[in-house]
Amino acid sequence: MISQQLHQALVDCLGPEGVVSERTQLRTYEMDALTGHRQVPGVVVLPESKEQVCAVVRLCRDAGVPIVPRGAGTGLSGGAMPREDGVLIVLSRMRRILAIDPENQRAVVEPGVTNSAISQAVAAHGLYYAPDPSSQMVCSIGGNVAENSGGAHCLKYGFTTHHVLAVEIVLSDGEVVTLGDSVLDPPGYDLRGVFIGSEGTLGIATSITVRLLRVPEAVRTMVADFDTPARAGDAVTAIIEAGIIPAAVEMLDSLAIEACEDATGAGYTRGIGAALVVELDGPEAGIDESLAAVETLCRNSGASKIRLAESDHERALIWKGRKAAFAAMGRLAPNYFVQDGVIPRTQLGRVLERMAELASQAELRVANVFHAGDGNLHPLVLYNGSNPGESERAEKLAADIAELCVEYGGSITGEHGVGVDKACSMPKMFSADDLATMLEVRQAFDPAGLCNPDKVFPTPRLCGEIPGPYRPHPLEEAGLIERM
Amino acid sequence: MISQQLHQALVDCLGPEGVVSERTQLRTYEMDALTGHRQVPGVVVLPESKEQVCAVVRLCRDAGVPIVPRGAGTGLSGGAMPREDGVLIVLSRMRRILAIDPENQRAVVEPGVTNSAISQAVAAHGLYYAPDPSSQMVCSIGGNVAENSGGAHCLKYGFTTHHVLAVEIVLSDGEVVTLGDSVLDPPGYDLRGVFIGSEGTLGIATSITVRLLRVPEAVRTMVADFDTPARAGDAVTAIIEAGIIPAAVEMLDSLAIEACEDATGAGYTRGIGAALVVELDGPEAGIDESLAAVETLCRNSGASKIRLAESDHERALIWKGRKAAFAAMGRLAPNYFVQDGVIPRTQLGRVLERMAELASQAELRVANVFHAGDGNLHPLVLYNGSNPGESERAEKLAADIAELCVEYGGSITGEHGVGVDKACSMPKMFSADDLATMLEVRQAFDPAGLCNPDKVFPTPRLCGEIPGPYRPHPLEEAGLIERM
Repeated sequence: MISQQLHQALVDCLGPEGVVSERTQLRTYEMDALTGHRQVPGVVVLPESKEQVCAVVRLCRDAGVPIVPRGAGTGLSGGAMPREDGVLIVLSRMRRILAIDPENQRAVVEPGVTNSAISQAVAAHGLYYAPDPSSQMVCSIGGNVAENSGGAHCLKYGFTTHHVLAVEIVLSDGEVVTLGDSVLDPPGYDLRGVFIGSEGTLGIATSITVRLLRVPEAVRTMVADFDTPARAGDAVTAIIEAGIIPAAVEMLDSLAIEACEDATGAGYTRGIGAALVVELDGPEAGIDESLAAVETLCRNSGASKIRLAESDHERALIWKGRKAAFAAMGRLAPNYFVQDGVIPRTQLGRVLERMAELASQAELRVANVFHAGDGNLHPLVLYNGSNPGESERAEKLAADIAELCVEYGGSITGEHGVGVDKACSMPKMFSADDLATMLEVRQAFDPAGLCNPDKVFPTPRLCGEIPGPYRPHPLEEAGLIERM
Repeated sequence: MISQQLHQALVDCLGPEGVVSERTQLRTYEMDALTGHRQVPGVVVLPESKEQVCAVVRLCRDAGVPIVPRGAGTGLSGGAMPREDGVLIVLSRMRRILAIDPENQRAVVEPGVTNSAISQAVAAHGLYYAPDPSSQMVCSIGGNVAENSGGAHCLKYGFTTHHVLAVEIVLSDGEVVTLGDSVLDPPGYDLRGVFIGSEGTLGIATSITVRLLRVPEAVRTMVADFDTPARAGDAVTAIIEAGIIPAAVEMLDSLAIEACEDATGAGYTRGIGAALVVELDGPEAGIDESLAAVETLCRNSGASKIRLAESDHERALIWKGRKAAFAAMGRLAPNYFVQDGVIPRTQLGRVLERMAELASQAELRVANVFHAGDGNLHPLVLYNGSNPGESERAEKLAADIAELCVEYGGSITGEHGVGVDKACSMPKMFSADDLATMLEVRQAFDPAGLCNPDKVFPTPRLCGEIPGPYRPHPLEEAGLIERM
C-alpha cells in the first residue's frame, strides 16, 4: 500500500538497513502489547537521528501518507498500531544519552532509551528517574512521553509529565520545535504538557530533557494481609488521611496473588482476600516512626499479618512479584483483557463490589492488581479465547468495568492511554465541545491529519458507525459535535 | 471607543450596576500591579455568573471587540492591562465556593475567590490550598490560574498547575468547555495545562477545581544569617544535595532586609549580606533530625547565626517580613521595577555578581528577595522616577537582568507571567518556530484573536518595530517567523 516511489525515497534516505518491507519482518510490528488489534504496516523505518526523522516525515507529508510512531511496542492501548497505508516510524535505534547534568539534576536522552537505562546511567551520581512503569526494563522513554506513563511510585512522585521538562519534536510537516525548557515553569503556553500523553498524534519526540531525583536515603517496604480488598482500601484511606504519603501503595487481590506466587514465589500469603504493599522513602530520620504509624493503621483496619522486608533482596522480590502480575496471568487463563480505570480512592470498596457482580453475571473471573493510593485500578478480565463467545463476553465485561469507573466519578484510563482501545469511550468522559477543542489543537499541530490518525479520538470507522477513510474532523462528520 | 449599541447590549445583559463606563471610575482599572503601563478601558463589566460571562463574550464576538479578563488586579506583568477599544471583564463578583469534597481533597470555586479564602473555607477539615503567592490575601484564584502563580512553598509543592485539576472556561466564541477532570491524569490532551499560565489569551475561567492538601502535622522555620548571598547559595545547594526538600527556601539580601525590617520589624539581622529562611514541614516524626541536618549544612557554608522560630507567632512574623518585601521597597526608593528571572540554582553566586556589576554600571541599587530553592530571583531595581532619565536607566537595567538570566540557561519569568512587560523578550527564549507553534494553538482556541490580544507574544506594535493594529499572526507579519 506504500508507493514504490515513496519506498525508494525512504531507502535513499535511511539506507536499506533502515527500511523494513519484507512481509514476514513487517508482521513483527503488527501490534503493540494490546493484543486483539493487528495490522501489518505499509512499511517500517528505523531512523537513527533527528535529521532522518525529519526527512522521513517530510517524505510522508509530500506523499500524503500517515505516520505512526512506535517506541518499544509495550503500550497497552494500541497507540502504536500500524496502518496498512502508513509508515511506522520505530525509534528504537535512537538510544543515545545526549547529556547528563548531575548538579542541576537533568539528563537529555533520545526517545529509544529505555526507562531503566536512564536511572542506570545516572546512578553513579546518586540520582534516578522516578516514573516506573512495570515494563521499565524494556519500555522506552519516548513511549512513556507518548502515554504519560505512570507506575507504582507515582502516588508520591507523579507521572511522566511531572518529570519531563522539555521535548524536542518533529511536527507533521517536518519542522523541529522545542516544547518546554530545562528551567521550571517557563513562560508561554505549556505545550510540553499537551505533547506528553498525546499518544503520537501531535508529532515525534526526538530528544527529551528529564528531571532526575536524588535516590532517597532510606526505603522501607512492607506487605500487609487483609481478609477483603475493602478492608485493605480502608487502610489506604486511613494512611493518606493521617498525612503520610507513601512512595507506593499497591494492592493485589486473591486471584492476582495466586498468579504472582505461581510465577515468582515472591512470598505473598496465598488464600487471603488482598495484600497491600506499602513503601515509604525519604530521609532515614523519622522513617521508622512513619512505618510504625502505617503498621498501626493497617492493624486498625484489620490487617491479619504484616511483613517488613528485612533486606534489599526481600524488597526486590516483593516488587518482582507485583510487577510480574500481568505476565503471570497466563497461569490462570490463556487470555486476558487489562483495564486501567481510575476511581476516587474513597469509592474503592463499592466499585470492587459492583465489579464482582458484573464478573459473576458475565461468568468470568477478574483479577485485580492496582495502584491503590491513586485509585488506579488494573482489573484483568480472564478468559479463554478458544471457547466460543467468551472473548466477546470478556470484551464487554472490560468495557462495562471502564464505564463503571466513569459512573463513580472516575476515568476510563489512568496510565495506559486511550489508543485504539478506549477511543470509543472518550465521549463518555468528555462533551462534544470538550473533544472539539482537543481536535482543534490537534489540527493546529497537524493540519493534514497524518500524525497517528485513528488514535485517541473516536472516529466513525473505529467506533463502527460510518465506515470511511480518516478525515481531520471525524466528530463533526459523524454529527457527534456541532460547532456554534 | 465602545459603540453605543454594544454598551446598551451590555447594560441590558448585566444591568446598569454590572457595567462601568464613567470616566473616573474606569481609571480605577487602567493598570494592574505593573505600574508604568496604563490604559483606560473602553468599558468594564462585572459579571456575576458563567451565563453572564458567556453573554458578554458573545456580544463582543459579534461586535469584533477585544476582551481582557481581570481578577484582583495584582498581576505584576500587565496581563490585565485594558484596551481602549475593548471590554475589561472583571471577575471579582464571582466569588462563590461551589463545592468542597474533603474526603477526596477537592474544592470547586469561582474565579474571583481569593487564594487564601480557599484555605480558610477548608481549614475545618484539616486541609489547605498549597500555592501561596505573596499577595495571597487579595489575589484571586482566577488570576493565579492565568499566571500559573507560584509562591514561597512551590519548592516542595509545585505551582498552580500542580494543584488545579480542572477548569471550566468560556472560549472567545462564548462556548463553554471543561479542561481537565477531577481524576488524576485524565485521557486526551492536557489542555488544562495549556490554559494554566495562558494569561487570559485562551478564554475566561468560570469555575476551577482545586486539589487540597492535608495541613502538615509539623512545621519548623529558621532564619540563617550569612556574610554574602553566594554563601547562602552554597547552603541551599548543600541542603538540596543532601536529599532534603524543604517546604520553602527564601533568601533576602542586605537591602531587602533593611526594607523589611523598617516596614515590619520581623527580626531579621540588619547589616548582614543575606538571610536564608528555611521551612521544613511533614510528619512530626523525624522533622527535628532534618532540621538539625539543615542547621549543620548552613553552619558548614558559613552561617554566622541561626534562629529557630519558637512559636507560631514568631513564624508568622518571619513570613510577614518576607512577604512584605515588595511593598516595603517604598521605604528605599520612590519607584522600583521587579524582575522575575529564573536561573539554574547552581549559577546563583555568579549571576548575583554579574547583577551587581550591571547595577553599578547603571548607578542604581538592586535589592534581591527570592525563592532560592527554585532559582527564582526577584531583583528589585530601585529608582526615582522624578530624576530625569532615571526611569529609562532602571528599565534598561531590569531588561539587562532578565537577559542575564537567559544567558545563564534560565528564563525571563518564573511566576509573574509575560503579560505586556516581557512580551518583547520572548524571542530570546524561544525560536520563531517555537513561538509559531504557540500561536497556532492560540488560534485554535481564539481564531478571531479577540482574547486578551497584545499579551504574551511579541507584537510589532508593543515591541516598537512596526506600528499598526493587532493581527492574528504578528510574528509572521513582522517577518520574525517564516513558515516552511
